[in-house]
Amino acid sequence: MDGMTKRHGRLARQVEFLLEVDKVKSVYRRTWLIDKSRLENDAEHSWHIALLAVLLSEYADEQIDLLRVVKMLLIHDLVEIDAGDTYVYDEAAMQDQEERERKAADRIFGMLPDDQAAELRRLWDEFEARRTPEARYALAMDTLQPFLHNYFTKGTAWEEHGVTAEMVHARTDLIEGGSPALWRHVQDMIRDAIRQGFLPQ
Amino acid sequence: MDGMTKRHGRLARQVEFLLEVDKVKSVYRRTWLIDKSRLENDAEHSWHIALLAVLLSEYADEQIDLLRVVKMLLIHDLVEIDAGDTYVYDEAAMQDQEERERKAADRIFGMLPDDQAAELRRLWDEFEARRTPEARYALAMDTLQPFLHNYFTKGTAWEEHGVTAEMVHARTDLIEGGSPALWRHVQDMIRDAIRQGFLPQ
Repeated sequence: MDGMTKRHGRLARQVEFLLEVDKVKSVYRRTWLIDKSRLENDAEHSWHIALLAVLLSEYADEQIDLLRVVKMLLIHDLVEIDAGDTYVYDEAAMQDQEERERKAADRIFGMLPDDQAAELRRLWDEFEARRTPEARYALAMDTLQPFLHNYFTKGTAWEEHGVTAEMVHARTDLIEGGSPALWRHVQDMIRDAIRQGFLPQ
Repeated sequence: MDGMTKRHGRLARQVEFLLEVDKVKSVYRRTWLIDKSRLENDAEHSWHIALLAVLLSEYADEQIDLLRVVKMLLIHDLVEIDAGDTYVYDEAAMQDQEERERKAADRIFGMLPDDQAAELRRLWDEFEARRTPEARYALAMDTLQPFLHNYFTKGTAWEEHGVTAEMVHARTDLIEGGSPALWRHVQDMIRDAIRQGFLPQ
Protein backbone atom coordinates (compact mmCIF):
# COMPACT_ATOMS: atom_id res chain seq x y z
CA MET A 1 0.00 0.00 0.00
CA ASP A 2 0.95 3.64 -0.08
CA GLY A 3 2.61 6.15 2.21
CA MET A 4 -0.65 6.80 4.01
CA THR A 5 -0.82 3.31 5.35
CA LYS A 6 2.69 3.11 6.68
CA ARG A 7 2.29 6.25 8.72
CA HIS A 8 -1.21 5.53 9.93
CA GLY A 9 -1.55 1.98 11.14
CA ARG A 10 -5.06 2.32 12.46
CA LEU A 11 -6.57 3.82 9.33
CA ALA A 12 -4.57 1.39 7.20
CA ARG A 13 -6.19 -1.57 8.98
CA GLN A 14 -9.62 -0.01 8.59
CA VAL A 15 -9.04 0.56 4.87
CA GLU A 16 -7.69 -2.99 4.38
CA PHE A 17 -10.85 -4.33 6.02
CA LEU A 18 -13.09 -2.12 3.90
CA LEU A 19 -11.36 -3.38 0.74
CA GLU A 20 -11.51 -7.01 1.89
CA VAL A 21 -15.26 -6.91 2.49
CA ASP A 22 -15.77 -5.82 -1.13
CA LYS A 23 -15.63 -9.58 -1.82
CA VAL A 24 -19.09 -10.03 -0.31
CA LYS A 25 -20.43 -8.44 -3.52
CA SER A 26 -19.38 -11.64 -5.26
CA VAL A 27 -21.05 -14.08 -2.84
CA TYR A 28 -24.29 -15.06 -4.56
CA ARG A 29 -27.37 -16.28 -2.76
CA ARG A 30 -30.29 -18.46 -3.85
CA THR A 31 -32.63 -15.47 -3.93
CA TRP A 32 -33.76 -14.07 -7.29
CA LEU A 33 -34.09 -10.33 -7.79
CA ILE A 34 -37.73 -9.28 -8.06
CA ASP A 35 -37.39 -8.89 -11.85
CA LYS A 36 -35.80 -12.38 -11.99
CA SER A 37 -32.88 -11.05 -14.06
CA ARG A 38 -30.29 -12.76 -11.82
CA LEU A 39 -29.54 -14.02 -8.32
CA GLU A 40 -28.86 -11.55 -5.52
CA ASN A 41 -25.51 -11.19 -3.76
CA ASP A 42 -24.77 -10.71 -0.06
CA ALA A 43 -23.94 -6.98 -0.28
CA GLU A 44 -27.27 -6.22 -1.97
CA HIS A 45 -29.10 -8.41 0.52
CA SER A 46 -27.41 -6.67 3.45
CA TRP A 47 -28.35 -3.24 2.08
CA HIS A 48 -31.93 -4.36 1.53
CA ILE A 49 -32.47 -5.82 5.01
CA ALA A 50 -30.90 -2.75 6.66
CA LEU A 51 -33.55 -0.70 4.86
CA LEU A 52 -36.28 -3.16 5.87
CA ALA A 53 -35.12 -2.78 9.47
CA VAL A 54 -35.44 1.00 9.27
CA LEU A 55 -38.88 0.98 7.65
CA LEU A 56 -40.51 -1.87 9.56
CA SER A 57 -39.29 -1.08 13.08
CA GLU A 58 -42.86 -0.24 14.17
CA TYR A 59 -43.59 -3.98 13.95
CA ALA A 60 -40.76 -5.00 16.29
CA ASP A 61 -41.99 -6.96 19.26
CA GLU A 62 -39.90 -5.05 21.80
CA GLN A 63 -38.08 -1.75 22.14
CA ILE A 64 -34.98 -1.96 19.96
CA ASP A 65 -31.81 0.04 19.43
CA LEU A 66 -32.16 0.49 15.67
CA LEU A 67 -28.54 1.51 15.11
CA ARG A 68 -27.34 -1.73 16.70
CA VAL A 69 -29.77 -3.69 14.52
CA VAL A 70 -28.51 -1.96 11.37
CA LYS A 71 -24.86 -2.50 12.29
CA MET A 72 -25.59 -6.21 12.84
CA LEU A 73 -27.29 -6.49 9.47
CA LEU A 74 -24.52 -4.65 7.63
CA ILE A 75 -21.91 -7.13 8.88
CA HIS A 76 -23.82 -10.38 9.50
CA ASP A 77 -22.94 -11.96 6.14
CA LEU A 78 -19.25 -10.98 5.94
CA VAL A 79 -18.27 -14.43 7.19
CA GLU A 80 -19.61 -15.80 3.89
CA ILE A 81 -16.55 -14.31 2.14
CA ASP A 82 -14.71 -17.37 3.51
CA ALA A 83 -17.53 -19.73 4.44
CA GLY A 84 -19.78 -19.22 1.40
CA ASP A 85 -23.54 -18.84 1.41
CA THR A 86 -25.21 -21.77 3.13
CA TYR A 87 -28.69 -22.30 1.77
CA VAL A 88 -31.16 -22.45 4.65
CA TYR A 89 -32.81 -25.50 3.11
CA ASP A 90 -29.49 -27.38 2.64
CA GLU A 91 -29.21 -29.49 5.81
CA ALA A 92 -25.90 -31.14 4.90
CA ALA A 93 -24.10 -27.83 4.38
CA MET A 94 -25.62 -26.43 7.55
CA GLN A 95 -23.91 -29.08 9.69
CA ASP A 96 -20.42 -27.60 9.62
CA GLN A 97 -21.62 -24.07 8.91
CA GLU A 98 -21.07 -22.87 12.47
CA GLU A 99 -17.42 -23.94 12.55
CA ARG A 100 -16.67 -22.51 9.10
CA GLU A 101 -18.31 -19.21 9.95
CA ARG A 102 -16.56 -18.86 13.31
CA LYS A 103 -13.17 -19.26 11.63
CA ALA A 104 -14.17 -16.68 9.04
CA ALA A 105 -15.25 -14.24 11.75
CA ASP A 106 -11.86 -14.66 13.46
CA ARG A 107 -9.99 -13.81 10.29
CA ILE A 108 -12.20 -11.07 8.83
CA PHE A 109 -13.11 -9.06 11.94
CA GLY A 110 -9.53 -9.62 13.12
CA MET A 111 -8.29 -7.38 10.29
CA LEU A 112 -9.67 -4.33 12.11
CA PRO A 113 -8.05 -2.43 14.99
CA ASP A 114 -8.65 -4.40 18.20
CA ASP A 115 -11.48 -2.23 19.58
CA GLN A 116 -13.45 -2.39 16.34
CA ALA A 117 -12.67 -6.07 15.80
CA ALA A 118 -14.11 -6.74 19.26
CA GLU A 119 -17.20 -4.58 18.62
CA LEU A 120 -18.05 -6.26 15.32
CA ARG A 121 -17.38 -9.71 16.73
CA ARG A 122 -19.71 -8.98 19.66
CA LEU A 123 -22.39 -7.82 17.22
CA TRP A 124 -21.97 -10.91 15.07
CA ASP A 125 -22.05 -13.22 18.11
CA GLU A 126 -25.14 -11.39 19.36
CA PHE A 127 -26.86 -11.88 15.99
CA GLU A 128 -25.97 -15.56 15.88
CA ALA A 129 -27.12 -16.18 19.48
CA ARG A 130 -30.61 -14.74 18.80
CA ARG A 131 -31.11 -13.82 22.43
CA THR A 132 -31.52 -10.01 22.45
CA PRO A 133 -34.51 -8.11 21.04
CA GLU A 134 -32.12 -6.53 18.49
CA ALA A 135 -30.81 -9.90 17.32
CA ARG A 136 -34.31 -11.35 17.04
CA TYR A 137 -35.60 -8.38 15.07
CA ALA A 138 -32.51 -8.42 12.82
CA LEU A 139 -33.04 -12.13 12.16
CA ALA A 140 -36.69 -11.44 11.35
CA MET A 141 -35.56 -8.97 8.65
CA ASP A 142 -32.94 -11.42 7.36
CA THR A 143 -35.69 -14.04 7.01
CA LEU A 144 -38.49 -11.79 5.74
CA GLN A 145 -36.57 -10.30 2.79
CA PRO A 146 -35.83 -13.56 0.94
CA PHE A 147 -39.36 -14.72 1.75
CA LEU A 148 -40.77 -11.60 0.05
CA HIS A 149 -38.52 -12.22 -2.96
CA ASN A 150 -39.61 -15.84 -3.16
CA TYR A 151 -43.28 -14.95 -2.81
CA PHE A 152 -43.24 -12.09 -5.33
CA THR A 153 -41.29 -14.13 -7.89
CA LYS A 154 -44.03 -16.74 -7.49
CA GLY A 155 -41.80 -19.28 -5.84
CA THR A 156 -39.06 -19.43 -8.49
CA ALA A 157 -36.35 -20.34 -5.96
CA TRP A 158 -38.70 -22.66 -4.04
CA GLU A 159 -39.39 -24.62 -7.21
CA GLU A 160 -35.69 -24.77 -8.14
CA HIS A 161 -34.77 -26.27 -4.78
CA GLY A 162 -37.82 -28.43 -4.09
CA VAL A 163 -38.89 -26.33 -1.10
CA THR A 164 -42.26 -27.16 0.44
CA ALA A 165 -44.70 -25.15 2.56
CA GLU A 166 -43.59 -27.08 5.61
CA MET A 167 -39.99 -26.03 5.05
CA VAL A 168 -41.00 -22.40 4.53
CA HIS A 169 -43.09 -22.53 7.71
CA ALA A 170 -40.15 -23.89 9.71
CA ARG A 171 -37.84 -21.17 8.37
CA THR A 172 -40.22 -18.20 8.64
CA ASP A 173 -41.01 -19.17 12.23
CA LEU A 174 -37.83 -17.20 12.96
CA ILE A 175 -39.77 -14.03 12.13
CA GLU A 176 -42.09 -14.62 15.08
CA GLY A 177 -39.30 -14.04 17.60
CA GLY A 178 -38.70 -10.52 16.33
CA SER A 179 -42.12 -9.55 15.05
CA PRO A 180 -45.24 -11.61 15.71
CA ALA A 181 -47.20 -9.03 13.66
CA LEU A 182 -45.12 -9.55 10.51
CA TRP A 183 -45.05 -13.29 11.12
CA ARG A 184 -48.86 -13.43 11.00
CA HIS A 185 -48.81 -11.67 7.62
CA VAL A 186 -46.20 -14.12 6.37
CA GLN A 187 -48.40 -17.03 7.44
CA ASP A 188 -51.24 -15.50 5.37
CA MET A 189 -48.91 -15.20 2.40
CA ILE A 190 -47.78 -18.82 2.72
CA ARG A 191 -51.44 -19.92 2.63
CA ASP A 192 -51.93 -17.69 -0.41
CA ALA A 193 -48.85 -19.16 -2.14
CA ILE A 194 -50.23 -22.68 -1.58
CA ARG A 195 -53.64 -21.61 -2.89
CA GLN A 196 -52.08 -20.00 -5.97
CA GLY A 197 -50.14 -23.20 -6.59
CA PHE A 198 -46.53 -22.02 -6.39
CA LEU A 199 -45.72 -23.55 -3.01
CA PRO A 200 -46.35 -27.31 -2.70
CA GLN A 201 -47.64 -28.62 0.60
CA MET B 1 -51.23 -8.59 -4.53
CA ASP B 2 -52.62 -10.87 -1.89
CA GLY B 3 -55.14 -10.78 0.93
CA MET B 4 -52.62 -9.29 3.31
CA THR B 5 -52.34 -6.12 1.34
CA LYS B 6 -56.03 -5.45 0.99
CA ARG B 7 -56.59 -5.65 4.71
CA HIS B 8 -53.43 -3.81 5.73
CA GLY B 9 -52.92 -0.69 3.66
CA ARG B 10 -49.96 0.61 5.60
CA LEU B 11 -47.90 -2.55 5.45
CA ALA B 12 -48.91 -3.02 1.82
CA ARG B 13 -47.43 0.36 0.91
CA GLN B 14 -44.26 -0.43 2.83
CA VAL B 15 -43.90 -3.77 1.06
CA GLU B 16 -44.58 -2.19 -2.37
CA PHE B 17 -41.83 0.33 -1.67
CA LEU B 18 -39.41 -2.37 -0.49
CA LEU B 19 -40.05 -4.34 -3.69
CA GLU B 20 -39.72 -1.24 -5.90
CA VAL B 21 -36.31 -0.32 -4.48
CA ASP B 22 -35.01 -3.75 -5.50
CA LYS B 23 -34.45 -2.05 -8.88
CA VAL B 24 -31.49 -0.12 -7.47
CA LYS B 25 -29.58 -3.42 -7.64
CA SER B 26 -29.66 -3.02 -11.42
CA VAL B 27 -28.39 0.59 -11.53
CA TYR B 28 -24.71 0.25 -12.40
CA ARG B 29 -22.08 2.83 -11.53
CA ARG B 30 -18.70 3.67 -13.09
CA THR B 31 -16.88 2.12 -10.13
CA TRP B 32 -15.09 -1.20 -10.59
CA LEU B 33 -15.14 -3.81 -7.84
CA ILE B 34 -11.73 -4.14 -6.18
CA ASP B 35 -11.10 -7.41 -8.08
CA LYS B 36 -12.11 -5.63 -11.34
CA SER B 37 -14.51 -8.46 -12.20
CA ARG B 38 -17.35 -6.02 -13.00
CA LEU B 39 -18.83 -2.61 -12.24
CA GLU B 40 -20.56 -1.99 -8.94
CA ASN B 41 -24.28 -1.27 -8.56
CA ASP B 42 -26.03 1.25 -6.34
CA ALA B 43 -27.27 -1.27 -3.76
CA GLU B 44 -23.76 -2.62 -3.20
CA HIS B 45 -22.36 0.91 -3.06
CA SER B 46 -25.00 1.94 -0.50
CA TRP B 47 -24.19 -1.05 1.68
CA HIS B 48 -20.49 -0.34 1.47
CA ILE B 49 -20.71 3.35 2.40
CA ALA B 50 -23.07 2.59 5.29
CA LEU B 51 -20.35 0.31 6.63
CA LEU B 52 -17.67 2.95 5.98
CA ALA B 53 -19.79 5.40 7.97
CA VAL B 54 -19.95 3.00 10.92
CA LEU B 55 -16.23 2.21 10.92
CA LEU B 56 -14.80 5.66 10.18
CA SER B 57 -17.00 7.80 12.43
CA GLU B 58 -14.01 8.63 14.65
CA TYR B 59 -12.74 10.80 11.78
CA ALA B 60 -15.94 12.88 11.52
CA ASP B 61 -15.28 16.58 11.96
CA GLU B 62 -18.23 17.14 14.30
CA GLN B 63 -20.49 15.16 16.61
CA ILE B 64 -22.84 13.14 14.40
CA ASP B 65 -25.99 11.10 14.83
CA LEU B 66 -24.71 7.92 13.19
CA LEU B 67 -28.16 6.36 12.73
CA ARG B 68 -29.28 9.41 10.73
CA VAL B 69 -26.11 9.18 8.61
CA VAL B 70 -26.70 5.51 7.90
CA LYS B 71 -30.36 6.06 7.00
CA MET B 72 -29.30 8.82 4.59
CA LEU B 73 -26.74 6.56 2.95
CA LEU B 74 -29.15 3.63 2.64
CA ILE B 75 -31.65 5.76 0.69
CA HIS B 76 -29.55 8.46 -1.03
CA ASP B 77 -29.28 6.65 -4.38
CA LEU B 78 -32.87 5.39 -4.69
CA VAL B 79 -33.69 8.33 -6.99
CA GLU B 80 -31.34 6.74 -9.53
CA ILE B 81 -33.97 4.05 -10.16
CA ASP B 82 -35.70 6.71 -12.30
CA ALA B 83 -32.93 9.25 -12.89
CA GLY B 84 -30.05 6.84 -13.58
CA ASP B 85 -26.52 7.14 -12.25
CA THR B 86 -24.99 10.48 -13.17
CA TYR B 87 -21.21 10.20 -13.40
CA VAL B 88 -19.63 12.90 -11.25
CA TYR B 89 -17.21 13.74 -14.06
CA ASP B 90 -19.98 14.06 -16.71
CA GLU B 91 -20.84 17.77 -16.69
CA ALA B 92 -23.52 17.60 -19.39
CA ALA B 93 -25.54 14.95 -17.55
CA MET B 94 -25.14 16.82 -14.27
CA GLN B 95 -27.00 19.86 -15.63
CA ASP B 96 -30.52 18.44 -15.43
CA GLN B 97 -29.65 15.92 -12.72
CA GLU B 98 -31.29 17.92 -9.95
CA GLU B 99 -34.64 18.14 -11.73
CA ARG B 100 -34.62 14.45 -12.72
CA GLU B 101 -33.73 13.38 -9.20
CA ARG B 102 -36.35 15.57 -7.55
CA LYS B 103 -39.08 14.03 -9.68
CA ALA B 104 -37.76 10.58 -8.83
CA ALA B 105 -37.80 11.40 -5.12
CA ASP B 106 -41.45 12.53 -5.40
CA ARG B 107 -42.48 9.26 -7.00
CA ILE B 108 -40.35 6.78 -5.07
CA PHE B 109 -40.59 8.12 -1.50
CA GLY B 110 -44.27 8.92 -2.25
CA MET B 111 -45.00 5.19 -2.38
CA LEU B 112 -44.57 4.97 1.41
CA PRO B 113 -47.16 5.87 4.07
CA ASP B 114 -47.17 9.67 4.45
CA ASP B 115 -45.12 9.84 7.67
CA GLN B 116 -42.36 7.64 6.29
CA ALA B 117 -42.45 9.33 2.88
CA ALA B 118 -41.90 12.64 4.65
CA GLU B 119 -39.09 11.27 6.83
CA LEU B 120 -37.18 9.79 3.90
CA ARG B 121 -37.71 12.89 1.78
CA ARG B 122 -36.38 15.06 4.60
CA LEU B 123 -33.32 12.82 4.89
CA TRP B 124 -32.72 12.93 1.14
CA ASP B 125 -33.15 16.71 1.04
CA GLU B 126 -30.77 17.01 3.99
CA PHE B 127 -28.16 14.88 2.22
CA GLU B 128 -28.49 16.89 -0.99
CA ALA B 129 -28.28 20.25 0.82
CA ARG B 130 -24.96 19.34 2.51
CA ARG B 131 -25.57 21.70 5.39
CA THR B 132 -25.72 19.49 8.51
CA PRO B 133 -22.74 17.62 10.02
CA GLU B 134 -24.55 14.34 9.22
CA ALA B 135 -25.02 15.28 5.56
CA ARG B 136 -21.42 16.40 5.19
CA TYR B 137 -20.06 13.24 6.79
CA ALA B 138 -22.41 11.08 4.68
CA LEU B 139 -21.22 12.85 1.52
CA ALA B 140 -17.62 12.29 2.60
CA MET B 141 -18.31 8.53 2.75
CA ASP B 142 -20.14 8.62 -0.60
CA THR B 143 -17.06 10.30 -2.12
CA LEU B 144 -14.37 8.33 -0.31
CA GLN B 145 -15.60 4.85 -1.28
CA PRO B 146 -15.37 5.26 -5.09
CA PHE B 147 -12.06 7.07 -4.59
CA LEU B 148 -10.70 4.04 -2.71
CA HIS B 149 -11.95 1.74 -5.47
CA ASN B 150 -10.35 3.90 -8.14
CA TYR B 151 -7.07 4.15 -6.26
CA PHE B 152 -6.84 0.43 -5.41
CA THR B 153 -7.73 -0.64 -8.96
CA LYS B 154 -4.86 1.63 -10.06
CA GLY B 155 -7.07 4.16 -11.76
CA THR B 156 -8.97 1.79 -14.06
CA ALA B 157 -12.11 3.96 -14.12
CA TRP B 158 -10.07 7.19 -14.25
CA GLU B 159 -8.30 5.96 -17.36
CA GLU B 160 -11.57 4.82 -18.98
CA HIS B 161 -13.14 8.23 -18.54
CA GLY B 162 -10.13 10.50 -19.05
CA VAL B 163 -10.19 11.73 -15.45
CA THR B 164 -7.27 13.91 -14.34
CA ALA B 165 -5.78 14.69 -10.92
CA GLU B 166 -7.39 18.12 -11.07
CA MET B 167 -10.82 16.54 -11.51
CA VAL B 168 -10.20 14.09 -8.65
CA HIS B 169 -9.05 16.96 -6.43
CA ALA B 170 -12.20 18.95 -7.18
CA ARG B 171 -14.40 15.95 -6.40
CA THR B 172 -12.61 14.70 -3.28
CA ASP B 173 -12.70 18.22 -1.82
CA LEU B 174 -16.20 17.16 -0.73
CA ILE B 175 -14.55 14.88 1.83
CA GLU B 176 -13.04 17.88 3.62
CA GLY B 177 -16.47 19.14 4.72
CA GLY B 178 -17.16 15.93 6.62
CA SER B 179 -13.70 14.81 7.59
CA PRO B 180 -10.58 16.99 7.18
CA ALA B 181 -8.54 14.09 8.58
CA LEU B 182 -9.62 11.64 5.89
CA TRP B 183 -9.34 14.36 3.25
CA ARG B 184 -5.65 14.86 4.08
CA HIS B 185 -5.03 11.14 3.59
CA VAL B 186 -6.85 11.27 0.28
CA GLN B 187 -4.64 14.16 -0.85
CA ASP B 188 -1.61 11.99 -0.02
CA MET B 189 -3.05 9.15 -2.05
CA ILE B 190 -3.73 11.43 -5.03
CA ARG B 191 -0.08 12.50 -4.98
CA ASP B 192 0.90 8.85 -4.77
CA ALA B 193 -1.35 7.94 -7.72
CA ILE B 194 0.27 10.68 -9.81
CA ARG B 195 3.73 9.47 -8.78
CA GLN B 196 2.86 5.88 -9.63
CA GLY B 197 1.61 7.05 -13.02
CA PHE B 198 -2.05 5.99 -12.93
CA LEU B 199 -3.54 9.46 -12.49
CA PRO B 200 -2.50 12.07 -15.11
CA GLN B 201 -1.98 15.64 -13.95
